[in-house]
Amino acid sequence: MNGLSINLATIRKQCDMRQAVDACLAAGITAIAPWRDQVAAIGLGEAAKLVRDNDLKVTGLCRGGMFPAPDAAGRQKAIDENRRALDESAALNADCLVLVVGGLPEGSKDLPGARTMVHDGLAALLEHARTMKVPLAIEPLHPMYAADRACVNTLRQALDLCDELGEGIGVAVDVYHVWWDPELEAQVARAGDRILAHHICDWLVPTQDLLVDRGMMGDGVIDLPAIRAMIEAAGFHGHQEVEIFSEKNWWKRPADEVLATCKERFATVC
Amino acid sequence: MNGLSINLATIRKQCDMRQAVDACLAAGITAIAPWRDQVAAIGLGEAAKLVRDNDLKVTGLCRGGMFPAPDAAGRQKAIDENRRALDESAALNADCLVLVVGGLPEGSKDLPGARTMVHDGLAALLEHARTMKVPLAIEPLHPMYAADRACVNTLRQALDLCDELGEGIGVAVDVYHVWWDPELEAQVARAGDRILAHHICDWLVPTQDLLVDRGMMGDGVIDLPAIRAMIEAAGFHGHQEVEIFSEKNWWKRPADEVLATCKERFATVC
Repeated sequence: MNGLSINLATIRKQCDMRQAVDACLAAGITAIAPWRDQVAAIGLGEAAKLVRDNDLKVTGLCRGGMFPAPDAAGRQKAIDENRRALDESAALNADCLVLVVGGLPEGSKDLPGARTMVHDGLAALLEHARTMKVPLAIEPLHPMYAADRACVNTLRQALDLCDELGEGIGVAVDVYHVWWDPELEAQVARAGDRILAHHICDWLVPTQDLLVDRGMMGDGVIDLPAIRAMIEAAGFHGHQEVEIFSEKNWWKRPADEVLATCKERFATVC
Repeated sequence: MNGLSINLATIRKQCDMRQAVDACLAAGITAIAPWRDQVAAIGLGEAAKLVRDNDLKVTGLCRGGMFPAPDAAGRQKAIDENRRALDESAALNADCLVLVVGGLPEGSKDLPGARTMVHDGLAALLEHARTMKVPLAIEPLHPMYAADRACVNTLRQALDLCDELGEGIGVAVDVYHVWWDPELEAQVARAGDRILAHHICDWLVPTQDLLVDRGMMGDGVIDLPAIRAMIEAAGFHGHQEVEIFSEKNWWKRPADEVLATCKERFATVC
């Protein structure tokens, strides 16, 4: 399946990383994006060997970020953790480290303050990212996650950060998070060669849960071909990475059925 | 309670409009914002008499909008319905008609197309709004409602529409919908005298339901005083209107308890 990558969160309830890779290979899929906990569960060395031995493309490692914290020690701890995530990304030969930047620190209502912490955390991390030659991919998250997951909520905001920070940092464009944005086309064009990843799934109507009710491509309302065209016009021709969190549906089905559905939808609706 | 208005959706499960007004008056609250179905249930004449007899301030009528439709007949029907909503607003001496503009037409994934339908619907409605001297208040809704409720999702987008359409149209700023916006301060300042309403409630963490899990002021993460300061700096010194949809909490409590809590929180955390 040329151009299709599977974010392993999509089958995280069914498979560990080794099983997930086996399922992808059996389906003819040779690009993946693992999560750090999935890598840790089998060990980084083993995960890197899986990637090498099977000549897998790793379209990203999920995830770094989570920069805001109530005190300086907490923020430093986050930066240190992100350095390790960069080392792991390099070991896995990942295209980028995907960043979910974090929301409000515990007990805080200061969103501009949290955003400053994100800026400062990124700035502190960037030199190591450049050294390791692993680009940082800011993933703007849907505004419904501003409080608890990521206070970077639009492509415009993410690109403003990239403009400030310079080389070595770009964006992960996940259709789930950005499809609603009236500025989408303009900001995708602005992103240009700073697009590091293209994540796909769908927005269900109604959506039953803020976190774990993402839809399979074609089951929702996102105009996937239109967004793909914007991204390609901006110069990104990398993989489309399927990332679906679905407690009540796709996480309950056999991995091979999920992957077969991803392939079929990728071929027909993306 | 000077400066406090109650959107009657906040106690819609407990009260009809007459009972709601009685409860507000008993609590010393003399400003309200009813919904059209609440007005219709007691009759427009009776509702207008309630307002007049009690010298109530009506900070808005909820709601007009819902402009997109699959065909021209459906869109015309929406415009006609909005004209009636304007007539009702005038009869109630409402400060504005609040517009939830509508999302994707049934079966459509064309968000730019829906947005064009909203523009065209507003343009068609505006002359009647000017004639009736009832300002149209576009309420940008949180991006999580882009598909099914409103495809105007940021203040910037709403103000761009206002710029295009001219006199007689402005915005309703509801903290629940806009608190996450990195451009909030700049766009509130830009809005200036086009701010027609200021709605308050709170964003709960976690939020259990996309529609009916809004929080009482102080129970969530929104920095209400900061947003109030922005709105006042922009020149709006009208009422703060409490609008809470809360299936599992506030809709289950007696109206007098809800109103007492609104008053206490308004005095202490807004």
